Order: sequence, then C-alpha cells, then structure tokens
Amino acid sequence: MIFVNGQCSDTVSALDRGLAYGDGVFRTLRTHAGQPLWWRDHYAKLAADCAALLLACPDEAGLRAEVCRVAAAGESIAKIVLTRGTGARGYAPPQGQACTRIVLSAPLPSHAHPSAPVDINARWCTLRLARQPRLAGIKHLNRLENVLARAEWDDPAIFEGVLCDDSGAVIGGVMSNLFWIKDGELFTPDLSQCGVAGVARMRLLRAAARLGIHTHIGRLLPDAILAAEEVMICNSVIGVRRVARLDDVTWTPAGWTTTLNNALYEDVD
Amino acid sequence: MIFVNGQCSDTVSALDRGLAYGDGVFRTLRTHAGQPLWWRDHYAKLAADCAALLLACPDEAGLRAEVCRVAAAGESIAKIVLTRGTGARGYAPPQGQACTRIVLSAPLPSHAHPSAPVDINARWCTLRLARQPRLAGIKHLNRLENVLARAEWDDPAIFEGVLCDDSGAVIGGVMSNLFWIKDGELFTPDLSQCGVAGVARMRLLRAAARLGIHTHIGRLLPDAILAAEEVMICNSVIGVRRVARLDDVTWTPAGWTTTLNNALYEDVD
Repeated sequence: MIFVNGQCSDTVSALDRGLAYGDGVFRTLRTHAGQPLWWRDHYAKLAADCAALLLACPDEAGLRAEVCRVAAAGESIAKIVLTRGTGARGYAPPQGQACTRIVLSAPLPSHAHPSAPVDINARWCTLRLARQPRLAGIKHLNRLENVLARAEWDDPAIFEGVLCDDSGAVIGGVMSNLFWIKDGELFTPDLSQCGVAGVARMRLLRAAARLGIHTHIGRLLPDAILAAEEVMICNSVIGVRRVARLDDVTWTPAGWTTTLNNALYEDVD
Repeated sequence: MIFVNGQCSDTVSALDRGLAYGDGVFRTLRTHAGQPLWWRDHYAKLAADCAALLLACPDEAGLRAEVCRVAAAGESIAKIVLTRGTGARGYAPPQGQACTRIVLSAPLPSHAHPSAPVDINARWCTLRLARQPRLAGIKHLNRLENVLARAEWDDPAIFEGVLCDDSGAVIGGVMSNLFWIKDGELFTPDLSQCGVAGVARMRLLRAAARLGIHTHIGRLLPDAILAAEEVMICNSVIGVRRVARLDDVTWTPAGWTTTLNNALYEDVD
C-alpha cells in the first residue's frame, strides 16, 4: 500500500523534483503490529534532514498516522519519502511549497527476520565516497554512489560493502553504519564529510553511553578495523549484525554484538 | 505534453528508482518547428551517460520520434529523463531491466528567447562541489548540489552562479559550462572530478578547433577568470552568453561571444 500526499496512489507527478534532482529525503523503518519502531528518533532525524535542505517537514502526528495506515499487521518495513514537490523547470527551489509525501510499506526482507543469522560477510568497495559537508549525514535522495557501490558485487553470500572516502578514511557500509570494538572501547567513523548518520547509529551511541562504553567518533583508517576485536554494522531494518568476514579477514565472536543489539532495542529514552 | 514509456501520462511509479535514488540521467534541449536541435550530440551524450551508469539507453530513432511528438510547433524545450525503472527496495540495481523513459516539452523560457540580452550577471557560489570521478561529467539525477547552489540567491538580476570544487578549482555554472578568453586562447575547466560536461560545451570546443582557437582544458583557479578578456557561459538552451559582471568584477565586450555563439550553431559535423 502506498499513500501519496495522503491519498492511496502508486504514482507521483513526472515533474516531481524528487525525480528530477533527487531533491528530497527518506526514511526506512520497521513496523510491528501496525506501529512504527523507534518513531521518535525517526521523526527527529527526518525533521533534521528536512531542515538541512530547507524542506517543509510534515507534522509528526499526521505522518505517524499515515505510517500506521500502510503498516501490515505483523512485521513489515515502512518507507517515507519527502520531496520538494513539483516545480518549474530549473534548479531554483520553489518557495513555501508543501512537500510531496510518499508513505509505503513493504514486506520484511528475509535478512531482517529474527531468524536471520547474526553474522554477515562483507567486502571492501572500490568506489570512494566524495566529501560534501553540506550533504553529509543526511539521508537524501542523491544515492547514486550507493547504487554504484552496491553494483560492485552480486555474490549473495556478501551482505554488505564497506566504503572509504576519497581521503582513505573508513565511512561505513553501503546500507549501514559501521562500528567496532578495540580494547573494550567503541569506534565509529565521523560522518561530517560524507555518509549517512542513521537512526540505529544514533541509538547505538546512546546505548553505549548507558552501558558505560567509551566511544570514539573520528577519522578512522582501514587498518583500525583489521585490528578490532569485533566489527559490527547496524541499521533500522536489521539492528546490529556482526561482521564475521571482511574480504580475507575473519573475526571470532567476542560477545559485543548481542550486548549492543539488545541495548539498541531498549526503549529507555 | 508528457510521454512516459511511450504513453501519454503525467505520472511515474512511486517506486521508480529515479525518485528513490536519483538513479538515472537526463537531457534538456531545444526544439525548433517540432525538431530537436543538435540531436546527434544529445543522443551521443545520453548514450555515453547511460553507459557510465550501466543503464540501457533507448534506441535513437524511437527516442527522437518521441521528442518530435511532444515538441511544440515553434520554439520549445524538450526534456528526456531515463531512470533504472522500478525496483525492489534496496540499492542493488536490477539486471536487464528497461529504463523508465520520460519525454516532455516545456515553453521556451524568456531568458532563452532570441531577444534576450546576450550579457548576463553572475556571482560566486559559496557551496563547493565534491569531487567524485565516477559521476563527474555525467548529467545524472543526483543534483542536490545544484539545487543548494541555486538557492544561494534570489536576485532576478543574477542569472548564474559560478562554482568551485573543494580544492578551489573553478568548475562551471550551476546550469551552464564556463569558458573564457585570454590572449586570444580559450580556457575551460577540466570536468574529470565533478561538474557536468554539457553538449553545448562539447560543440563549443569543436567550434573553437574549427576557428583555429587554441584551447586549454585544465585545473583553473578563480584568479584566471579575473584576468580574462571575455568570460562566457553556455548550455543547450541559451547558447553562449557573455558574463558582463561576476560579483564586483566587470568586463567590456571583446567580441568573442558573438563569434563563438555563431560557430556553436553551425551544423558542420
């Protein structure tokens, strides 16, 4: 089921700026029994991303109600896309215009089922992310780098690709954020130059603080991962997963993934 | 009038990858008496951009026929958008799928009428373009940088903004390519790291070669523009225009714009 601007519809205007320029933002989240998971965090991130692009974010209650309307009875995925609406030809953003608002649901992918393995295999991507501080962290609709990076492999045994920026710093997964543990402390890349700062990442950072785990966010190089005790990826659909293999490097479980995944789902805020 | 996959329609699927990820390319061109201008160059560029993103480009004759069908009787603009079609959730590009093909026409904007002034005013943009060699030169649908740069001004007396990359090199206009003349030679920025290598730029380079004007394509800094004799922008809609003012710097006409604009429209290839 898809709602476009509150109406049941599976199409948008061919003149939409989301299509013309990728001029918009999106969210992918889990729903359970018709209710969105981590809603407060997802709405806060959506509002922040809208603010960064000077988009008018829809009000929280109305948007939440739409997510509930599309959500299936059991476990499912909801996606929210907000664009700058239709506009005249040309890059100049129209002033004071309401967003195009797309809310849709999709079945939970098999890799997100509770029975899916906690361990995943990953690879290094060849593509290097460009550094654009004006867009860094935002989950916007300009995702060609992710598409090109994901096109680098079709081996179903590889779950995720790991990306560096053009300076050689590690940034994260194609569809996830990256964390690792070294000497009992948590490390995750700074995303002020590129990458998407996801809701699961933010929740994991809060969870680490609650657990008293010292956290480092900074410019981190690939060698640091190879020296880690345990490497993890996370996003709102899969939670925390342990990276068992990254190309030729393997790790044995050290127990952190379960601890952090449990903490990720605690609703204590 | 809008054709979507050959059918008269003003909507596309809400699941289109052009909307979800900006996963596609586009062209904007002029039509005259129902025929596309510079068609061979536009199709060649479209095919090259498709190849760079592993998109299946529609065949030339069929696409040209669609442009002719949407084109108005007099002078108008046609836009072609090609996306990777609809797809399952996730960045992985579906294999062997036909593009979504959108062909539409729009009235010629007033600034593109033959009576519009040849001289324009420009400004330096604050935004710095990120360098991504995998996407550089391609007219793809990830255009948030252009949207943000164009949002930097709303003074209608300013026609164009000039952009540098994050290393400080000049790249071009928000919606145009940039050229200048110094000591009788032509200079234009290298676009191997970012920017869009437009059809008008390519035609202008060929025209300069025919005219025996020595041309430099390279990493060029803002100071070089300030020392130029004549500064120009070009694109397929406006042809060549003279930059009369760039923020506080002004130039008096040296005659190059008319010469190069006339050569741009010569159909000698």
